[in-house]
Amino acid sequence: MKKIVTFGEIMLRLGPPGFERFTQAHTFEVIYGGAEANVAISLAHFGESTDYVTRLPDNDLAEACLGSLRQHRVGTDHVLRGGDRLGIYFVEKGAAQRGSKVIYDRAGSSFAALEPGMIDWQAALAEAAWFHWSGITPALTPGAAAACREAITTARSLGLTISCDLNYRHALWKWGKSSAEVMPELVAMGEIVMGNPETVETMFGITAPDPAGDPVEQTRLVAEQLAARCPNLTTIAFTARESHSASHNTWSATLWQAGHFYSGPSYDLTPIIDRVGGGDAFTAGLIYGLRRKPDEPTYALRFATAAACLKHTIPGDSNLVTVAEVEHLMSGDGSGRISR
Amino acid sequence: MKKIVTFGEIMLRLGPPGFERFTQAHTFEVIYGGAEANVAISLAHFGESTDYVTRLPDNDLAEACLGSLRQHRVGTDHVLRGGDRLGIYFVEKGAAQRGSKVIYDRAGSSFAALEPGMIDWQAALAEAAWFHWSGITPALTPGAAAACREAITTARSLGLTISCDLNYRHALWKWGKSSAEVMPELVAMGEIVMGNPETVETMFGITAPDPAGDPVEQTRLVAEQLAARCPNLTTIAFTARESHSASHNTWSATLWQAGHFYSGPSYDLTPIIDRVGGGDAFTAGLIYGLRRKPDEPTYALRFATAAACLKHTIPGDSNLVTVAEVEHLMSGDGSGRISR
Amino acid sequence: MKKIVTFGEIMLRLGPPGFERFTQAHTFEVIYGGAEANVAISLAHFGESTDYVTRLPDNDLAEACLGSLRQHRVGTDHVLRGGDRLGIYFVEKGAAQRGSKVIYDRAGSSFAALEPGMIDWQAALAEAAWFHWSGITPALTPGAAAACREAITTARSLGLTISCDLNYRHALWKWGKSSAEVMPELVAMGEIVMGNPETVETMFGITAPDPAGDPVEQTRLVAEQLAARCPNLTTIAFTARESHSASHNTWSATLWQAGHFYSGPSYDLTPIIDRVGGGDAFTAGLIYGLRRKPDEPTYALRFATAAACLKHTIPGDSNLVTVAEVEHLMSGDGSGRISR
Amino acid sequence: MKKIVTFGEIMLRLGPPGFERFTQAHTFEVIYGGAEANVAISLAHFGESTDYVTRLPDNDLAEACLGSLRQHRVGTDHVLRGGDRLGIYFVEKGAAQRGSKVIYDRAGSSFAALEPGMIDWQAALAEAAWFHWSGITPALTPGAAAACREAITTARSLGLTISCDLNYRHALWKWGKSSAEVMPELVAMGEIVMGNPETVETMFGITAPDPAGDPVEQTRLVAEQLAARCPNLTTIAFTARESHSASHNTWSATLWQAGHFYSGPSYDLTPIIDRVGGGDAFTAGLIYGLRRKPDEPTYALRFATAAACLKHTIPGDSNLVTVAEVEHLMSGDGSGRISR
Amino acid sequence: MKKIVTFGEIMLRLGPPGFERFTQAHTFEVIYGGAEANVAISLAHFGESTDYVTRLPDNDLAEACLGSLRQHRVGTDHVLRGGDRLGIYFVEKGAAQRGSKVIYDRAGSSFAALEPGMIDWQAALAEAAWFHWSGITPALTPGAAAACREAITTARSLGLTISCDLNYRHALWKWGKSSAEVMPELVAMGEIVMGNPETVETMFGITAPDPAGDPVEQTRLVAEQLAARCPNLTTIAFTARESHSASHNTWSATLWQAGHFYSGPSYDLTPIIDRVGGGDAFTAGLIYGLRRKPDEPTYALRFATAAACLKHTIPGDSNLVTVAEVEHLMSGDGSGRISR
Amino acid sequence: MKKIVTFGEIMLRLGPPGFERFTQAHTFEVIYGGAEANVAISLAHFGESTDYVTRLPDNDLAEACLGSLRQHRVGTDHVLRGGDRLGIYFVEKGAAQRGSKVIYDRAGSSFAALEPGMIDWQAALAEAAWFHWSGITPALTPGAAAACREAITTARSLGLTISCDLNYRHALWKWGKSSAEVMPELVAMGEIVMGNPETVETMFGITAPDPAGDPVEQTRLVAEQLAARCPNLTTIAFTARESHSASHNTWSATLWQAGHFYSGPSYDLTPIIDRVGGGDAFTAGLIYGLRRKPDEPTYALRFATAAACLKHTIPGDSNLVTVAEVEHLMSGDGSGRISR
Repeated sequence: MKKIVTFGEIMLRLGPPGFERFTQAHTFEVIYGGAEANVAISLAHFGESTDYVTRLPDNDLAEACLGSLRQHRVGTDHVLRGGDRLGIYFVEKGAAQRGSKVIYDRAGSSFAALEPGMIDWQAALAEAAWFHWSGITPALTPGAAAACREAITTARSLGLTISCDLNYRHALWKWGKSSAEVMPELVAMGEIVMGNPETVETMFGITAPDPAGDPVEQTRLVAEQLAARCPNLTTIAFTARESHSASHNTWSATLWQAGHFYSGPSYDLTPIIDRVGGGDAFTAGLIYGLRRKPDEPTYALRFATAAACLKHTIPGDSNLVTVAEVEHLMSGDGSGRISR
Repeated sequence: MKKIVTFGEIMLRLGPPGFERFTQAHTFEVIYGGAEANVAISLAHFGESTDYVTRLPDNDLAEACLGSLRQHRVGTDHVLRGGDRLGIYFVEKGAAQRGSKVIYDRAGSSFAALEPGMIDWQAALAEAAWFHWSGITPALTPGAAAACREAITTARSLGLTISCDLNYRHALWKWGKSSAEVMPELVAMGEIVMGNPETVETMFGITAPDPAGDPVEQTRLVAEQLAARCPNLTTIAFTARESHSASHNTWSATLWQAGHFYSGPSYDLTPIIDRVGGGDAFTAGLIYGLRRKPDEPTYALRFATAAACLKHTIPGDSNLVTVAEVEHLMSGDGSGRISR
Repeated sequence: MKKIVTFGEIMLRLGPPGFERFTQAHTFEVIYGGAEANVAISLAHFGESTDYVTRLPDNDLAEACLGSLRQHRVGTDHVLRGGDRLGIYFVEKGAAQRGSKVIYDRAGSSFAALEPGMIDWQAALAEAAWFHWSGITPALTPGAAAACREAITTARSLGLTISCDLNYRHALWKWGKSSAEVMPELVAMGEIVMGNPETVETMFGITAPDPAGDPVEQTRLVAEQLAARCPNLTTIAFTARESHSASHNTWSATLWQAGHFYSGPSYDLTPIIDRVGGGDAFTAGLIYGLRRKPDEPTYALRFATAAACLKHTIPGDSNLVTVAEVEHLMSGDGSGRISR
Repeated sequence: MKKIVTFGEIMLRLGPPGFERFTQAHTFEVIYGGAEANVAISLAHFGESTDYVTRLPDNDLAEACLGSLRQHRVGTDHVLRGGDRLGIYFVEKGAAQRGSKVIYDRAGSSFAALEPGMIDWQAALAEAAWFHWSGITPALTPGAAAACREAITTARSLGLTISCDLNYRHALWKWGKSSAEVMPELVAMGEIVMGNPETVETMFGITAPDPAGDPVEQTRLVAEQLAARCPNLTTIAFTARESHSASHNTWSATLWQAGHFYSGPSYDLTPIIDRVGGGDAFTAGLIYGLRRKPDEPTYALRFATAAACLKHTIPGDSNLVTVAEVEHLMSGDGSGRISR
Repeated sequence: MKKIVTFGEIMLRLGPPGFERFTQAHTFEVIYGGAEANVAISLAHFGESTDYVTRLPDNDLAEACLGSLRQHRVGTDHVLRGGDRLGIYFVEKGAAQRGSKVIYDRAGSSFAALEPGMIDWQAALAEAAWFHWSGITPALTPGAAAACREAITTARSLGLTISCDLNYRHALWKWGKSSAEVMPELVAMGEIVMGNPETVETMFGITAPDPAGDPVEQTRLVAEQLAARCPNLTTIAFTARESHSASHNTWSATLWQAGHFYSGPSYDLTPIIDRVGGGDAFTAGLIYGLRRKPDEPTYALRFATAAACLKHTIPGDSNLVTVAEVEHLMSGDGSGRISR
Repeated sequence: MKKIVTFGEIMLRLGPPGFERFTQAHTFEVIYGGAEANVAISLAHFGESTDYVTRLPDNDLAEACLGSLRQHRVGTDHVLRGGDRLGIYFVEKGAAQRGSKVIYDRAGSSFAALEPGMIDWQAALAEAAWFHWSGITPALTPGAAAACREAITTARSLGLTISCDLNYRHALWKWGKSSAEVMPELVAMGEIVMGNPETVETMFGITAPDPAGDPVEQTRLVAEQLAARCPNLTTIAFTARESHSASHNTWSATLWQAGHFYSGPSYDLTPIIDRVGGGDAFTAGLIYGLRRKPDEPTYALRFATAAACLKHTIPGDSNLVTVAEVEHLMSGDGSGRISR
């Protein structure tokens, strides 16, 4: 099959080991991650051919970052080098009633300084059939937003399938325009969108008609409105994370496809080893499912949900699981027995 | 606001990483902690100005210990140097049905060899408004008990508010007098006491009138009797830890103040990252609450209980949380969501 | 009391720290373990005099392995040296819905190359009263199976009590004969057997008469049939592990002895620190109980079950707990309170 | 004695453990350091009362940084909070023929955004007798240069002794003016300067008259010219590091004071544990010596040189040694015998 | 430029951290390495396009191994999967008078079970211009030797340049034929050979005519004889390691090319961080130099020697240095100064 | 051969990893060591049958300590349990000009509280041919000194060979008598003594007649005088450590035996990995040599010196080397080549 290209910012993730607070740390674990890179890595573990496009500085940290992508079979031939620095984010893992804490230090990164025309999108997408981006990129700077628009436009002109994870981060979107001003046009150019009703309200102003009504039905109605607003959309996936504590969440998802609406299984996540990247694991699972069984939307929904569940058991940003492992959980076996 | 001075023994805490048993350990984690130092550190994180008074030997381990206190904004100007050694305690963390294990190696420490007259209490308390001690100090040696009495007497003569955590440790109190012979007089000189009904029975001979009666009401009656016995007391706080397993406890507290009795919230602690210092975190929270909102006793009770809850999620002895973090949990949000 | 001799293969166990996957690991924790060695180590911690018999190569890894056995008071005087390599197994610890994963790399080991006549069983068993083996040894190679038979025969001729943990591993038994062809004769020479109904079905073809019937009663009936098939057996212990997730299991056991059938307590294991060796801990507990209180079969059953429960809280293969700790849990105190 | 105030940027220092390259690292060691903070910490270990002035953001990394300063007895009451980020530098330690490598990521830091008027220098210097700064601060941004000028001017007006470490870093000085345009005026306002002849050439255009002549004499002549250019200068210290390999350096220094010129001892540094902060350790030693024995310039020179030597044996940026340890080495005992 | 393909066995390298002995280790560092893989990785760091051909089992350790190759930009598209196990070698690092110790556990590996016909050499070499192998492969098993012969023959038929590192390991060559019976024919098919005079004597029976004569001249005469024996050879490189201690070696090399003989620089290696892979680093440097400056044999010799020198400063098997770093050392700067 | 029994105090050794100072440490490495235990462990690695006698408390740290002895094949059947605590010592490793630092925390230990009559020496020495003690034991307390005298007397009455390492520690000997009052009588009861001329002067008042004379000759004359004073002595070994830096020492030794005097080889120790236990390694080597080749005193001297040399390359207190490894170095091969 042709390639899946994902595009976004990958950062150096640093954080204390175990459950130490930032002020207790004498070492930081070193990981490289970012929403769209996590999707690419997960897809590569599912056997898909993937390429990741970003912009990184010319230093050894960026080399280490590239090595990490290649290690997971993600192609890096179209990564642009230049700019001043690698974005960083610091993660302190929470437990029980104490939530995890993230400090972003991504301003001034090589990626944030991206401008249209820098990346040769014709070349980067030449062997691809699918293009994936997320709402984080246009949130960063006008240049990144414009470069994202350029990528989407090129992908569309080349006939690629386009998916977007809305990924709303309130702390971003500081450059002058709101997500509501930027995202609808970009999202409307693609076929697939992942998100949740709250984000749809923020970005599209779409609300559930009866907040007191049946939650699943209200979610369906939000999806219907979004589909009406963006006629090019064929698939809308909404995830729902219920947070009982930092160590115990419940995870489920719904899928709207071509007028039909499906509700997936719910997983009890406890103990959570690392919740970063749970949504990216879902996205990767969904893309895999939609590509491999396009006529079986519930397969994609169930595969994505099981994939997201497994991600929570794995340290780091990336969902290092195989299709067989996801399907084993989909089959109902979440017993965690030893595989010898 | 004027300073809070806490007084007691700080020790070198050593223990295997993770859930290794003592006999499996090839490294020990190095922490410095003790009940009253933990209270001071927690108060400093709440923004209070604190000083810690103790006696430490003249060696590099004591230097490291002092550095650790200063790092957490605790004043050490009145720490006395001298004596033979730093007390040590070894902690093996338990899990599920296997309880944690503590080996004390504190005999002969610089603090245990304390005698009245060694510390210049007039100077040490000159800038303070509050003095906090615990039942561990008089349990150690006759000299430590006498020095503790000297401190309390001076604090009283200077008009400081005095609080005491009863902190009964059966393995101590080996020097000739029992806690029942020593503690009542010392406690009666202060205004605030933290403990639990079992300790009150041991130290004061006060029992709940009807063991089969409603537990909260019985606790109230114990507090009433203790208040009657020590007329100077204005505030009595009782904590209750229910231990389901080493990894799962339930924690709650009650507060008697000036004839009124309040019952606080209950927190489910699971998984427990480190339970050492839970009571000290409660004590610090109570002192903070009583100082900041003296007319709102339930604030102190709820703040202290939420603080103790958060302590169980943090490795080490000390409750490294801010007022904002405690109040976030008090507000009812124990969902452990990521703070970005 | 006279010695307990256990016989089998001990291997180098390697695995990533924490919950890392194999592909994430940059260090492996180094442990030496194997079913029968685990039993010996646990018995030594219970105060029994034990000897372990195996075959190890002449290299420093084998020296480290021997040192580990001696450290736990297990005698190694009859360990044979020779052959090519130490068997290895790699363990990736799972969590929640992701199960643990084991990669065996034991082919060609010094033990697998064992042949009858190599070990001087008369000498090895001279001071022993009890011989323990497991179904892993005859599963390896024809030579190991024959050596196992030789050991059992000698033990019987010397009047030792013989116990066997059936320990069926599907991935083994590749050398030409099935477990059903080999095990029944060997098991029948002993007095005690540990296992579960599924393994009894595989090895003996014995099934529960009414799969839809009461599970405990059905288990009893399987034990009755097995006892009838092997008249020398006096004791049959069946363990039952219910796996809710990799982090949460329920564990219980039943015991058939001389026509009587006993059902033991059930323990909720959560969180599981290391589940490897749970069955070996049970076996060691059972042997200890049967030796110390031969007239009180429920003691052995309850002791073994509580021992297996505690094992799940301890990193590594071996159950490093004392009789006092097991009896504390048997007494009903699984509260995990701190022991100071 | 009155306080020593040092002023500059402290950063988060991250680097692989041992001799790993950046591309091999899975953990980074976490240290907080910067030239002027290192000087303050070293002086505090010598028993001097010190305060450190800088600007840090409002986040937990900055809290950890402040804790690290306080731990070493450095006062932080005048640290300004605000701005966007904590500067970072990454250090890869070299060995033998492979040199260490540093990646700076300090652009956009809270300190770089400093402007005159932000810091209340009257308050910050109120209790001080000595002010120390380095050539790194004016190299950063126009604002930092202006704030540095403001600090020096205020210090002078308050009658403080002012010392400057020229600290030329070619990679900095990118904001429009060269060091030669900025530094001479600032240096001339102080009394003490540390540096080396190469830097004096860069900043002041002063060269040794006879490059082929006796090196010590040429160094003296450079000092004489610098003293003539800056009549306020009383003391000029030049350090000389000869680098045989990353693991083996030779270190020596010379001192010009009021027309006299002194040459100090030379130390063979091998193996070097951490060379970062060697110059800062020299500076701290020099300040200590000049303050404590103002009439004995060779004491200051020898103390500073021995202090710098010891720094190379200590991991991290800071010279964690006592006066007694430095004087022990000054006395000629570099034998490294065990102190029991 | 076209690809360089290297072929051989890559293994899991395990060893204690620091200078612990095997019997002290509780963790092993995990690295993947092997002579020919090390060459490929080093060449990839020099910017060459490389492919590595081997045979690996179908398990997660092999996945981790492949990830490690890809991380370093080595192509793995022609790695064959199958067989039973990944070879392992254990390394204990020595210091001073205590030498390092290696335990090989490679028997029965997937690579050792290689047979001619398994690998599609036409495909594997299709895009290559250079093929590199070493004397380790034919030493393993008859099948590996035959597969190696097949590879060389194919490479020759395709017109590739062929290089061989003689790499004599006495502990191998146990399968029936000696290196002298196997190697000469294989070596003679190539153009370039790396080794040392001792190995040439073992494999070719060629000795220096006058052992008491000038060593460089004698080395030249050995090269001359070898060239005469293998007329296809254009280049012979001999390395010389003088071992003063495990921490201090001297390294130099000579090169015979088309009748000319060159002697390269000598490097003092101290302290040695990791000496494994020093020869492979030389080989990679030589190949790089010969390809990039075919008309300047002393460039290749000096580049290779400097590369080997730098390898000794880097933990692990692989020489993670760039061309710029090697050329910096070639330029004479071995001072190990900080690069900022 | 019959057993060697060593007697003394074993302690918990704690220290920072690498070259961290005490004030930087967040973990301590955990080792169990003591002069006489180190001798026993080294002898066990040489294949000797050894037993270690001491007194340890009844806690898990003592269990871990016993496990460590058994792991190294040292018999612990006659270790007495009781008393209050395990002695501790803290070790900070130095480098270059910074010496290592030791903090002792051994007062009040179970061993220090030893009294005559506690240990059943008849039983403890029943199977022994050799008894070894050191000057540390009588230095501790009157009780320990008396118990040591009891042990020596019993050993003598049983006809054992008795060796003593004088092991003078100035910081000990605080209980009222000086070493000069206690040691001569005890030493005189044995046959073998290890030490150095400085200690002989302190304990026996014996000085070299001509301090300006040839050092070896003067050492011989000291030995002669000591032999004259203690007519029972047959063998006197003097070690000489020249300390160039904490990382580089030179080590040599001399031996007086029955009127003859031998001077051994000298080893350059660089880099030193861990110098603790160097003298104990020498002692163990000497005892081994004297037992195995009683007629070849230079063998013992050379074996002991080479053993001490190797100890400096091994982390921890104990010399974990085999006879083959020592003899390899004795043979002149200190090249540190890899052993594959």
